[in-house]
Amino acid sequence: MSPKITTELLKQLRQAMKSPKYVQEPVQAYIVPSGDAHQSEYIAPCDCRRAFISGFDGSAGTAIVTEQHAAMWTDGRYFLQAAHQMDNNWTLMKMGLKDTPTQEDWLVSVLPEGSKVGVDPFIIPADQWKRMSKALKSAGHDLVSVKENLIDTIWVDCPQRPCKPLITLDLSYTGVSWRDKIVALRSKMAERKVLWFVVTALDEVAWLFNLRGSDVEYNPVFFAYAVIGMNTIRLFIDGDRVMDPAVREHLQLDSNLEPEFRIQVVPYGSILAELQAVGAGLSPKEKVWLSDKASYALTEAIPKAYRYLTPYTPICIAKAVKNAAETDGMRRAHIKDAVALCELFNWLEKEVVPKGTVTEIIAADKAEEFRSQQKDFVELSFATISSTGPNGAIIHYKPVPETNRTLSVNEIYLLDSGAQYKDGTTDVTRTMHFGTPSAYEKECFTYVLKGHIAVSAAIFPNGTKGHLLDSFARSALWDCGLDYLHGTGHGVGSFLNVHEGPCGISYKTFADEPLEAGMVVSDEPGYYEDGSFGIRIENVVLVIPAETKYNFKNRGSLTFEPLTLVPIQTKMIDVNLLTPKECHWVNDYHQKCREVIGAELERQGRREALQWLVRETEPLKVQ
Amino acid sequence: MSPKITTELLKQLRQAMKSPKYVQEPVQAYIVPSGDAHQSEYIAPCDCRRAFISGFDGSAGTAIVTEQHAAMWTDGRYFLQAAHQMDNNWTLMKMGLKDTPTQEDWLVSVLPEGSKVGVDPFIIPADQWKRMSKALKSAGHDLVSVKENLIDTIWVDCPQRPCKPLITLDLSYTGVSWRDKIVALRSKMAERKVLWFVVTALDEVAWLFNLRGSDVEYNPVFFAYAVIGMNTIRLFIDGDRVMDPAVREHLQLDSNLEPEFRIQVVPYGSILAELQAVGAGLSPKEKVWLSDKASYALTEAIPKAYRYLTPYTPICIAKAVKNAAETDGMRRAHIKDAVALCELFNWLEKEVVPKGTVTEIIAADKAEEFRSQQKDFVELSFATISSTGPNGAIIHYKPVPETNRTLSVNEIYLLDSGAQYKDGTTDVTRTMHFGTPSAYEKECFTYVLKGHIAVSAAIFPNGTKGHLLDSFARSALWDCGLDYLHGTGHGVGSFLNVHEGPCGISYKTFADEPLEAGMVVSDEPGYYEDGSFGIRIENVVLVIPAETKYNFKNRGSLTFEPLTLVPIQTKMIDVNLLTPKECHWVNDYHQKCREVIGAELERQGRREALQWLVRETEPLKVQ
Repeated sequence: MSPKITTELLKQLRQAMKSPKYVQEPVQAYIVPSGDAHQSEYIAPCDCRRAFISGFDGSAGTAIVTEQHAAMWTDGRYFLQAAHQMDNNWTLMKMGLKDTPTQEDWLVSVLPEGSKVGVDPFIIPADQWKRMSKALKSAGHDLVSVKENLIDTIWVDCPQRPCKPLITLDLSYTGVSWRDKIVALRSKMAERKVLWFVVTALDEVAWLFNLRGSDVEYNPVFFAYAVIGMNTIRLFIDGDRVMDPAVREHLQLDSNLEPEFRIQVVPYGSILAELQAVGAGLSPKEKVWLSDKASYALTEAIPKAYRYLTPYTPICIAKAVKNAAETDGMRRAHIKDAVALCELFNWLEKEVVPKGTVTEIIAADKAEEFRSQQKDFVELSFATISSTGPNGAIIHYKPVPETNRTLSVNEIYLLDSGAQYKDGTTDVTRTMHFGTPSAYEKECFTYVLKGHIAVSAAIFPNGTKGHLLDSFARSALWDCGLDYLHGTGHGVGSFLNVHEGPCGISYKTFADEPLEAGMVVSDEPGYYEDGSFGIRIENVVLVIPAETKYNFKNRGSLTFEPLTLVPIQTKMIDVNLLTPKECHWVNDYHQKCREVIGAELERQGRREALQWLVRETEPLKVQ
Repeated sequence: MSPKITTELLKQLRQAMKSPKYVQEPVQAYIVPSGDAHQSEYIAPCDCRRAFISGFDGSAGTAIVTEQHAAMWTDGRYFLQAAHQMDNNWTLMKMGLKDTPTQEDWLVSVLPEGSKVGVDPFIIPADQWKRMSKALKSAGHDLVSVKENLIDTIWVDCPQRPCKPLITLDLSYTGVSWRDKIVALRSKMAERKVLWFVVTALDEVAWLFNLRGSDVEYNPVFFAYAVIGMNTIRLFIDGDRVMDPAVREHLQLDSNLEPEFRIQVVPYGSILAELQAVGAGLSPKEKVWLSDKASYALTEAIPKAYRYLTPYTPICIAKAVKNAAETDGMRRAHIKDAVALCELFNWLEKEVVPKGTVTEIIAADKAEEFRSQQKDFVELSFATISSTGPNGAIIHYKPVPETNRTLSVNEIYLLDSGAQYKDGTTDVTRTMHFGTPSAYEKECFTYVLKGHIAVSAAIFPNGTKGHLLDSFARSALWDCGLDYLHGTGHGVGSFLNVHEGPCGISYKTFADEPLEAGMVVSDEPGYYEDGSFGIRIENVVLVIPAETKYNFKNRGSLTFEPLTLVPIQTKMIDVNLLTPKECHWVNDYHQKCREVIGAELERQGRREALQWLVRETEPLKVQ
């Protein structure tokens, strides 16, 4: 990777920051957040403004450009990548390290007195605006809304906003009709005494209407907003996508529905004006419900006294708890995904060991090929992390020609990959060695495995928040003075975003909602040795009720069921470091892989992969 | 306990709420918070206004009186006690239960339109004022400052504010002179660019000046404020306490010090006026540092633009990290405390088993008697929790004649107690059985012990916050469907408050500061079976550097060293439930108790207690 040369672009941006064409008064700093107008984690090419201006294209990062400086804040996953992709114009701000200033503190330290800091109000979430604005104000500066996005003004070959066809999902996939979801949503609105609910997140719009799209790579979503009233439904969406007969039928656009279920289709771009009209028509005590992460522009459209903001919307919370149709779908998707990975790993063993011709990119492509052979495969759920040796230590690595290493019998190989199937979303990491791992590599792998098991087998009372389980994943590593600089798990959507709220397992997340039966999260501790190797073991797991001896005085208890059923390479395990209980966990897990995935491999006639599975699921000898 | 009859008092209070003598306009509600003007957890009798007006004297609770209603908010620890102590005039608001309204919501539901809600601005912390005021304002009401405390106006026999002699602590106890503490504080002030620091918490004033007092029971503090400028030191304190030659000498009041170290002694009551003068004299960019928990009155004295508020003050953070002199003192205090408890437990075994004449109160008194025989004993550090059988399940139980049970060979006995010594503060809980515990009691005890060990033996990287360790204490209980409804640990002062910030080990605390070597916290998981028994095992532990195989890439790692060295009753342990590692922990711990406390018992000629110690520290047979 060579860094992007940004000298000219920064010059242009700094001119725009002073140009009366775009700003009433010059701004001394301009903030370029990561997100789009929906605060999406994955964004369309036309929204990759931060990558355009800086060269750094990781999934998280905020750029701030002043007259003198250009600085980039990102987290531990991306320190190496950002350092490689950015030129000398940029200062990397390593978030999470003690001496790294916050954006606010840094701005205050570099800005001349009484400065104006500009930002696109559609891109910055309202909560971030508030925090930033307050901090700047207390230091004598001002955060100001710049209506025209300044990056767009200098981005001459900016791609078009995508507008791809929609996919309709029937009840066999969703379990609940969009109409019933609207009914449930309105009942939550009535409970909180709000009259309107504004759906701003793309996956929430998709989930609510049982529609999917492909406007954003890896996330089966489409650009849209929705505004739900007690008697009205407005869907803000562009193009002729709703002219598709299947979509019209699905949304019952041409049926004579009761008025409160008639969907009005409105242009995507009219959301702000429509919302301002809603805001202007409110009487005292009438409230509008928005996520506190909605954009500042949309939040401001509703006068403050009428806003009802929550960190998680009722859709976000309902979406997280999968119903029976969705869990069945997730199980099916994970079985198919495991079949593809058994094929891949069998193929890799045959190719890597004798021939040495498989690169990270070839392996990633082969994984996609095997997945695409499975029923209802749609696309990958994120860019495959196929990394060998030192590349494995780059936590969110994606192989590109410049970095592409060849898999060998001398290095650890880490594959973190997943797919979107029409019945579910997968995300799995396996770390393996095609030769003989060193004692140190096995030791580290085994600590990571112990952490993985500690979370997967944890039993905890109903109402426990995921962040309280994070340290279980680290304890074995900590005992030896090792750690990893990322969270342990994230929520996973059902044929939706591979990262979703409101729950997760992380030392960082404090605002997570309690885990509930039916939620789906990942369990993915790791260990990374800079310049040498990376280890991660990731399953997607389903929260299920647990049976305990005393059952928390009927409060009930929970545990996890692994949905991912792919063997964990036993060659990498130092069995002496496992307790008997941990050995049994591995053996039970492998037994289940053999039964469930074995049957499917058999059914699909994939004999060689079946033999590989049987070999890889030989039980450990319990110590 | 019969409830306090409050009809007449409430009538008088409601008159005061309308009297032009005290309020410019009548207030329709009056809030009586728990605290004093320093937001102390333990308060002097003259500050027990909420107990005076309601009868409820638990450590936490807020009363609100309107023209029609009187309501009391308190938490789960005090539901029973509050219900017993209050008469029918009062409604108990059980905090933490789903249907209990917040104070704000309740006020909004009962107040007539456009009401005024009064509160003493010295008693309410600024952050609470802000939240309450905002909520009331958005519903059309106003929170107003009532300068004269309305409870004081009707409290005819209100006790005097204590004004007891001061204790000076020399360097052998404190390790750092008050002068060096001022220098360090000023350097923190310079770092944050603040010109003034206001010390409002009593333990912070005491720590800063290396003084102690006895104005508040259990907490060796005295009523005072301090205002530290870059060149001035003002101590706000009443009485002739600073006329004591030892105090004058200690504070060097009569020496010809450099001006920036000369302490000006000012009357306690003049803090507000002096602070207003400071506030009025500020130029732009000059800031005054206050705790965000300081009273509304003092916070308001500084114009908003000049305030620098933080949740933890630099004194709070510095005070938490004990220096070598303080840790040595804490070790000495804990040795003496263990001697007293060995004597007590030996005495109990002799008295309870054959005679059955020892009540909870007698046992608590005996514990105090043994402690008072130790060098530098000052007082207890909190009201002794001496509880047997079902009383043990009341987490913050204090024996009184009405509830006083007799210890027997049939019930579990829980003793949670501690003392203030001039060299340190102790807090220890032991749970024991003088007969034969049931299998279930042993099972529960052993899970609690496993949790205690899991925290005590935990190794974690530098920078880890205490709340990330909380689940370690629960894991063994969770596995069987058991839990406890309190945090696992709190910070402990050095001959100061037994509860202190900014660190702790709790699922509830998210704003805790990272643990650092030198911090002292408690490790006290428990299990409580309502109506039957309570179990808790508590040691005070010191955060120390740990040696690990890989040392977190030089980030360094931490663990705990138990300061408490009192045997854990092995009779209560089901050894089959312990891992070999846990057995070794118990044996190593008991070995250390035997060596360290044994030597001291020997030195003090306490032969019988020594024999008891030797018996009680027999090693477990490792499974």
